[in-house]
Amino acid sequence: MALYVQKYGGTSVGSVERIRGVADKVKGFRDNGHDVVVVVSAMSGETNRLIGLASEMQDQPDPREMDVLVSTGEQVTIALLCMALKERGCDARSYTGGQVKIRTDSSHMKARIQDIDVENMRADLTRGRVVVVAGFQGVDEQGNITTLGRGGSDTTGVALAAALSADECQIYTDVDGVYTTDPRVVEGARRLDVITFEEMLEMASLGSKVLQIRAVEFAGKYKVPLRVLHSFQDGPGTLINIESDNKMEQPVISGIAFNRDEAKLTITGVPDIPGVASKILSPISAANIEVDMILQNIGAGGLTDFTFTVHRNDFSKAQTVLEKVAKELGANGTEGADNIAKVSIVGVGMRSHAGVASTMFDCLAEENINIQMISTSEIKVSVVIAEKYLELAVRALHSAFDLDQQAVEESM
Amino acid sequence: MALYVQKYGGTSVGSVERIRGVADKVKGFRDNGHDVVVVVSAMSGETNRLIGLASEMQDQPDPREMDVLVSTGEQVTIALLCMALKERGCDARSYTGGQVKIRTDSSHMKARIQDIDVENMRADLTRGRVVVVAGFQGVDEQGNITTLGRGGSDTTGVALAAALSADECQIYTDVDGVYTTDPRVVEGARRLDVITFEEMLEMASLGSKVLQIRAVEFAGKYKVPLRVLHSFQDGPGTLINIESDNKMEQPVISGIAFNRDEAKLTITGVPDIPGVASKILSPISAANIEVDMILQNIGAGGLTDFTFTVHRNDFSKAQTVLEKVAKELGANGTEGADNIAKVSIVGVGMRSHAGVASTMFDCLAEENINIQMISTSEIKVSVVIAEKYLELAVRALHSAFDLDQQAVEESM
Repeated sequence: MALYVQKYGGTSVGSVERIRGVADKVKGFRDNGHDVVVVVSAMSGETNRLIGLASEMQDQPDPREMDVLVSTGEQVTIALLCMALKERGCDARSYTGGQVKIRTDSSHMKARIQDIDVENMRADLTRGRVVVVAGFQGVDEQGNITTLGRGGSDTTGVALAAALSADECQIYTDVDGVYTTDPRVVEGARRLDVITFEEMLEMASLGSKVLQIRAVEFAGKYKVPLRVLHSFQDGPGTLINIESDNKMEQPVISGIAFNRDEAKLTITGVPDIPGVASKILSPISAANIEVDMILQNIGAGGLTDFTFTVHRNDFSKAQTVLEKVAKELGANGTEGADNIAKVSIVGVGMRSHAGVASTMFDCLAEENINIQMISTSEIKVSVVIAEKYLELAVRALHSAFDLDQQAVEESM
Repeated sequence: MALYVQKYGGTSVGSVERIRGVADKVKGFRDNGHDVVVVVSAMSGETNRLIGLASEMQDQPDPREMDVLVSTGEQVTIALLCMALKERGCDARSYTGGQVKIRTDSSHMKARIQDIDVENMRADLTRGRVVVVAGFQGVDEQGNITTLGRGGSDTTGVALAAALSADECQIYTDVDGVYTTDPRVVEGARRLDVITFEEMLEMASLGSKVLQIRAVEFAGKYKVPLRVLHSFQDGPGTLINIESDNKMEQPVISGIAFNRDEAKLTITGVPDIPGVASKILSPISAANIEVDMILQNIGAGGLTDFTFTVHRNDFSKAQTVLEKVAKELGANGTEGADNIAKVSIVGVGMRSHAGVASTMFDCLAEENINIQMISTSEIKVSVVIAEKYLELAVRALHSAFDLDQQAVEESM
């Protein structure tokens, strides 16, 4: 008799048949005596259709009106799912973001949740109803419709689970869990039964697209147990565990993440004096370019090189800004490349295990892969390499850290 | 410097181009210094698409969820229109029925408006903004989304005009006004510059599909001047005048209305005793069948015949009910026909002119059209005839009452 918040994404509710499938699944949980709050996205394709209409009306669509427009996508899904549940004899009631009172700030298209009123939902659950909530949307203090930005439905799910103290927030997707790495790259990639929040955060931010990083952060902050499952296949999925300090039996490395979406830029021969980093990065951030890795090595002769990575889409924009900065600082020049990839090993286990980084570097050296940049955190080591070596590097590391399916089976 | 409430129906906002056209039109009014509140319907086809989705989810879609679903149609339009207005440098702000606080009762799919909060709209108008409101929808006391039923956008327009004491409620449609009769039937049909509320009510209820009868009633009750205009052609349209008692210069007959959607049923040889009408009609109304005309002539030999008309779709259902009633009452039997049509002459002028009905009957007799039923009100005479004579009857009457374009031009 648990309370589950279940989130179904756009693909899971992408057709009339799939909505029926979700209704069957939800009814199964009710029949087993569980309380269920369902969060749904817009039917896949619908949000893009609406954005397309908007761009035909206005060059830069007004953010307030954009939220009024796109929030209709989820509103359609909640109504249809409730109908499907009722058709199955399962009482249900839908709520828009405004109706369930998901109060947000007024930042249209990227609002942040401030408060949720759980009173109506609790009353419905007590009456045996399934509560169906529109994901991705809320309402500000003045009653304006807001949206949380793309992928915000995961965040809605986690926020509802936190507000209702749910036993678990289940994110239903088109994969059956979190893998040690992308199975399309490494055949022997394994589904993880459990992963810690910190690891999931690193995996998500490094390009493992299973969960929105914002939702994972939110779940970690409010200690909401989060589980990733397949919408239409049975299975335990992957639990993102709130207990991250139980390191017994914890493998050293949980997974290999990678990312092809970055580009690197270097400004060479800048004066090695206090404040220079800020002088380089302020104009970049003023141009609304997000920076990922930042590297500055020790200088020589009063000069140093400064390297950072940005999203590949921002590469040429960042180059233009950086060339201007180089002139102003009297630097030697700038360099850049967008044919790079970032590969990371992630695992809380490495906190207590020495030599993890050197295992990684040895492995790459054996494959003759040159490392262009290195960056580390407590539970992660990332390297930037040439993009063409990406698959080779991931496969080699997966094997070097004993993550292959076969390896585990043999050791059992 | 007037305040106009303008309602644009589904066809007027049926495509991206048409929404742009509406934006141009609204901007024109703003440029002339007028305040404008716009009410829009869903883009044509959208409501039917949503209803189609609903019927795939549930045999009898839940009314509450149906309202959540279909209300998204207008929500899309308000956002798109605001974007188009802003693109033209015309400040605008959208409101859903819930946001503008169109408070209704809780009768889903056929809610009635109880109250409108005009505060936000007034503030927007003062700031020079165009206010764009979703038609057809409201919100009940518990915050549930309601809809006013099909065609409810006209009612939203009139209700807003009443609440804001607007100078005029303008209903933009795909015709350029109210005609003396259907121009597809009578070539010489004329647009009326002015028509009284009572006449418009009779015209609307008799099948002139220009305006929703409920909106006309509402406008009459709250004395809102109502004007029917063409969305994309210039012209004065037809004013539905709140001053109905100025009968000077009033033509005897304003128009000829007709309706092919009815069927007639007769129960013959029923005992001519008090209470028999109720015994016949109660089971009909219990079966949710609406009755239009009701006729009972004086009886003979203690028996009488009782005739009424229903919507053609309800004909066979009504027959079944009536046969049962006939048995219970010991009546001789039942008759019925659905190949009938109703033709009516409408005009407040007939109140003060004798002989209008006989002119009508003479005209039909001259064309050898047999009258099956007659029913009259203060400003209307309706006859039921065989459907095949409909066009002939309408043309003959249009001419007999001097409504033809040519006749008016000649008398000028």
